[in-house]
Amino acid sequence: MADIPHTNGNGIHTMAREFGEDRRKCCWYEEEIEQDLRMCYALKSILHTGASNYQDITLLDTRPFGKALIIDGKLQSAEIDEFIYHECLVHPALLHHPNPKSVFIMGGGEGSTAREILKHKSVEFVVMCDIDEEVVDFCKSHLLVNQEAFMDSRLQLIINDAKAELEKREELFDVIIGDLADPLEGGPCYQLYTKSFYESIVKPGLNEGGIFVTQAGPAGVLTHTEVFSCIYNTLKQVFKYVVPYSAHIPSYADTWGWIIASDEPFTANAEELDKRSKQRINGENRYLDGKTFSSASMLSKIVRKSLAKETQVYTEESAKFIYGHGAGHNNHA
Amino acid sequence: MADIPHTNGNGIHTMAREFGEDRRKCCWYEEEIEQDLRMCYALKSILHTGASNYQDITLLDTRPFGKALIIDGKLQSAEIDEFIYHECLVHPALLHHPNPKSVFIMGGGEGSTAREILKHKSVEFVVMCDIDEEVVDFCKSHLLVNQEAFMDSRLQLIINDAKAELEKREELFDVIIGDLADPLEGGPCYQLYTKSFYESIVKPGLNEGGIFVTQAGPAGVLTHTEVFSCIYNTLKQVFKYVVPYSAHIPSYADTWGWIIASDEPFTANAEELDKRSKQRINGENRYLDGKTFSSASMLSKIVRKSLAKETQVYTEESAKFIYGHGAGHNNHA
Amino acid sequence: MADIPHTNGNGIHTMAREFGEDRRKCCWYEEEIEQDLRMCYALKSILHTGASNYQDITLLDTRPFGKALIIDGKLQSAEIDEFIYHECLVHPALLHHPNPKSVFIMGGGEGSTAREILKHKSVEFVVMCDIDEEVVDFCKSHLLVNQEAFMDSRLQLIINDAKAELEKREELFDVIIGDLADPLEGGPCYQLYTKSFYESIVKPGLNEGGIFVTQAGPAGVLTHTEVFSCIYNTLKQVFKYVVPYSAHIPSYADTWGWIIASDEPFTANAEELDKRSKQRINGENRYLDGKTFSSASMLSKIVRKSLAKETQVYTEESAKFIYGHGAGHNNHA
Amino acid sequence: MADIPHTNGNGIHTMAREFGEDRRKCCWYEEEIEQDLRMCYALKSILHTGASNYQDITLLDTRPFGKALIIDGKLQSAEIDEFIYHECLVHPALLHHPNPKSVFIMGGGEGSTAREILKHKSVEFVVMCDIDEEVVDFCKSHLLVNQEAFMDSRLQLIINDAKAELEKREELFDVIIGDLADPLEGGPCYQLYTKSFYESIVKPGLNEGGIFVTQAGPAGVLTHTEVFSCIYNTLKQVFKYVVPYSAHIPSYADTWGWIIASDEPFTANAEELDKRSKQRINGENRYLDGKTFSSASMLSKIVRKSLAKETQVYTEESAKFIYGHGAGHNNHA
Repeated sequence: MADIPHTNGNGIHTMAREFGEDRRKCCWYEEEIEQDLRMCYALKSILHTGASNYQDITLLDTRPFGKALIIDGKLQSAEIDEFIYHECLVHPALLHHPNPKSVFIMGGGEGSTAREILKHKSVEFVVMCDIDEEVVDFCKSHLLVNQEAFMDSRLQLIINDAKAELEKREELFDVIIGDLADPLEGGPCYQLYTKSFYESIVKPGLNEGGIFVTQAGPAGVLTHTEVFSCIYNTLKQVFKYVVPYSAHIPSYADTWGWIIASDEPFTANAEELDKRSKQRINGENRYLDGKTFSSASMLSKIVRKSLAKETQVYTEESAKFIYGHGAGHNNHA
Repeated sequence: MADIPHTNGNGIHTMAREFGEDRRKCCWYEEEIEQDLRMCYALKSILHTGASNYQDITLLDTRPFGKALIIDGKLQSAEIDEFIYHECLVHPALLHHPNPKSVFIMGGGEGSTAREILKHKSVEFVVMCDIDEEVVDFCKSHLLVNQEAFMDSRLQLIINDAKAELEKREELFDVIIGDLADPLEGGPCYQLYTKSFYESIVKPGLNEGGIFVTQAGPAGVLTHTEVFSCIYNTLKQVFKYVVPYSAHIPSYADTWGWIIASDEPFTANAEELDKRSKQRINGENRYLDGKTFSSASMLSKIVRKSLAKETQVYTEESAKFIYGHGAGHNNHA
Repeated sequence: MADIPHTNGNGIHTMAREFGEDRRKCCWYEEEIEQDLRMCYALKSILHTGASNYQDITLLDTRPFGKALIIDGKLQSAEIDEFIYHECLVHPALLHHPNPKSVFIMGGGEGSTAREILKHKSVEFVVMCDIDEEVVDFCKSHLLVNQEAFMDSRLQLIINDAKAELEKREELFDVIIGDLADPLEGGPCYQLYTKSFYESIVKPGLNEGGIFVTQAGPAGVLTHTEVFSCIYNTLKQVFKYVVPYSAHIPSYADTWGWIIASDEPFTANAEELDKRSKQRINGENRYLDGKTFSSASMLSKIVRKSLAKETQVYTEESAKFIYGHGAGHNNHA
Repeated sequence: MADIPHTNGNGIHTMAREFGEDRRKCCWYEEEIEQDLRMCYALKSILHTGASNYQDITLLDTRPFGKALIIDGKLQSAEIDEFIYHECLVHPALLHHPNPKSVFIMGGGEGSTAREILKHKSVEFVVMCDIDEEVVDFCKSHLLVNQEAFMDSRLQLIINDAKAELEKREELFDVIIGDLADPLEGGPCYQLYTKSFYESIVKPGLNEGGIFVTQAGPAGVLTHTEVFSCIYNTLKQVFKYVVPYSAHIPSYADTWGWIIASDEPFTANAEELDKRSKQRINGENRYLDGKTFSSASMLSKIVRKSLAKETQVYTEESAKFIYGHGAGHNNHA
């Protein structure tokens, strides 16, 4: 233990303080973005750790991104920028719909997707169907920003496999939202991204004019062919109108992708989206408005070319087990 | 030293090979994106290290991004995605100009900016003015992709301070390009981003209808107020038309910004830009086309709001020395 | 948020669990052992963080070493192996003394040094003089293993500069113990390692036959010339008998050194030390016994040679300010 | 690319140089000492990488430890301190033997073990038997310090499984040296540490009065029960006299263990060992002399107690496959 005598005005002390600032960055959360790329976030504290039957759950307080929810070693959602992911997932679909009243969320146990949906005054009924009760309970207790959403009487929370639930439900929905892990071969969510699932369960679950939207994995210049282009191509086999879009999410260290799909065309332009936002949404979006969506849905040349050339379609048959993928891949969802 | 007897068909050997794949990722290049955020890139090899009078220079071969040029501990340019940065820096300015013949590059010693400029058939004369001869020589020898550009007879390479050079030159330029480190207070490039520099040296150095473009630092949702918004506001004091735009660059782990400025309006739309590209550019851009620029220049709501509210202007007077900033900050340029 | 359907007996789930084990090692405490050598300890949790007027204080729970006290970014003491450091610091001096009744600790605010001293039945009076009240209070509250020691009526706790305190005290001590940061030039403890301090304050503070012991910094094959050899040589100028010894401390990632010094010879052999241990110490040491001390005080050839050749003596005059050393160096103490 | 104007005497430049020193430490070699403990060594360069049929081989130039040989992601030998490991492995056995003429090395392809043996003037014949030809060739070409040894006419280099080779050889040896990976269950070297191997192959391969020595894994306070205590106990079943000893090896981040065993007692004391060293060894040891061995073979109380209590014996039968151990464990050897 150090016993440090008084410093004597020669500046040592002050400097030590300044370096101290640096030195305190000695606790880190480390994530493998890819096998050969890591991101390290300075840690303030480890708030909670736990495990469900399905997943390990950790809540961290990070210096660069605030509170961060980590599931199975992957950052799912960071306080400082989760609004980008969740506004992009929810509002384009709901705003393009003329009058969305009922919404089904596949996954979404964190509560942020429900929170964004429930800002829409038109919405009367939201089903959130997540398989992992412990994760839902963990988020209910620890993510204060979503507590109001979890208490909203319009929200029905179901613990079940989303596919089974959607199949057995008799009512139809105006919007169905896929807030799931990526469709990795061998991974647990693969079958929720296949052509047959979209065809025989999702599309029949929509009301006329209904819209389906799904998170669609990394969509960066270097990563958009991992799953984004293939989800796009698969949805094109099933829906008449399919619009991919993307946004950079700092805490994911990548550009992320989403895709909206419908049998009705997406005709609302930036001004119309802004008008609808004002009329329908309680409060104001931080990230997404009409122009932002116009920009986000105009992909860069290199991504547009890949999407146009993509021929792979996700089917049950093409699913084969690939070592480590289901567990090791980057499944922010 | 391990002496390992023959394995006997029980799978140990195969597994060792598979783990070997993982274990070989034991050499890493680590960069502090911010003080509390690090990116680690698996290393294949350290190709060259050196130091000029001004800077430390390293050429690495990284697994995720290929060859990477590191200056003073900051990744400047990575083989796999430098085309995004350099196409965004060069082509919007040259394509918006009706007939660019002469171009002045402040900095740019890596050669990639010159390479993109020299693809334009209209260009007759390019001055590249970099202060660091060793960096230029290093890049000339080691970056094969730019060797043709360095040999192009239209390129005049000057070793000098860009401000001094531009001031003493008598000829005017159609396009001036700022490919400099960020304008950090106390940093070496600060004075090349001030209102007075733009007013008394850059603008007078342009032909009528001339266009100025500069890299403008990080432009992500969390980082655009560091310098991007202020460069934008400073340029607005000097030029009639100012257009900021941005793109996510994976190896920078952020969205990056550039700004074009002129006293003539930027009227070319996406189709016109594509038409000009076809007519004027040898070969084909990989990242930037008309739609990409339309998307890149339509900033997200949160960034647009910050830019609209920005009041700071860079002036010589506002420059004051801030401890460590000049050296420690993120100056990809 | 991932919604993961039931896995279907194909082993994915089990594997995910196994990988989960690995993936949970995503929080790390990182320490710079030297400028180009780092040790990273997997973190369970960050128990407390705080700052005194002098130092930053953190209590971590690490996977490899249990609870660890970090001061100014340096691991001071880890639950799992602090007994090595503290038994080596305290028992050789007290056991070699024929009948130690009074002990003065310079520093030692953590409480572990006092704890080891108070195990000696002969000890009637211990002064612990640490300058940093917050550190002492922090350790009192959080280090349960030392709470009994802090409550012991034989312990007098003084908050003061050790030099000033020792100077003004009128009583003499049987043993004086230096539990201080390393004597880095420009560092805060430098003056507590000088020849003049030993000569005019420490030695006069000892009773006849009294023994002085000090921690003496890293003593590994590669590190023993940093300060260990010089403290040894300085003590040789002042005391007739000086015995250096060392032990590997896993959580310090190095072999550590201590030195006992007296004007009486150290005559007790291994058997005698064991006999005295049994008679005088309540409980039993885990690390240090007679043979361990014999081994620890028989240094390896390469270290013995350096110590024999050392000519530097710490004096007030030789202290000069070296950039960064006071703050950045490895000062486990 | 940064263009940096002349700095103007305000000290920025000098400071940048100083920080540059720090910033250049951006390339690191990272090793998992244990699953939850990592050591990171700053890298100067990656000299060579390759792979044999058995192992991945890398030669690095590290800042703290000089050139380092890495096999399958584990540091085997570092320029700056490999002399500790190899002097401890070789000289105690050869010096305790009255007149060692023939020596058999199991493993040892790096060449350093042979180098130390060949310093003994009495030695007439050394067999080095390593299974991995590529590793041997790699070390022959790249480890200049061992080139003389590889050319020594007394050395016979055999590429074979050490067990098979020793079994078929008809001549007996004065000293047999085990320079092998640790005896991990399921690992490739397990069978070279079993009681039956020692009994039926090693002991019969020794001349009368012959000595066997083996590296024996980590021997630190926290790690000596991993394999050290069990190798010790296994050898005690087979040989009359067994002496364990240890030394801290900085680049291994641990204290390491070796064990000598014979049916003749080890009677030479420190003075005798020093006398023999002078007579028999060309040149002078840096680490090991008589006193060093006395100290190294006097283990600390906590280690002595574990060894005394150890009951496990390595047998072929007790070998069972444990997931990942053979590949992932810490096998410096």
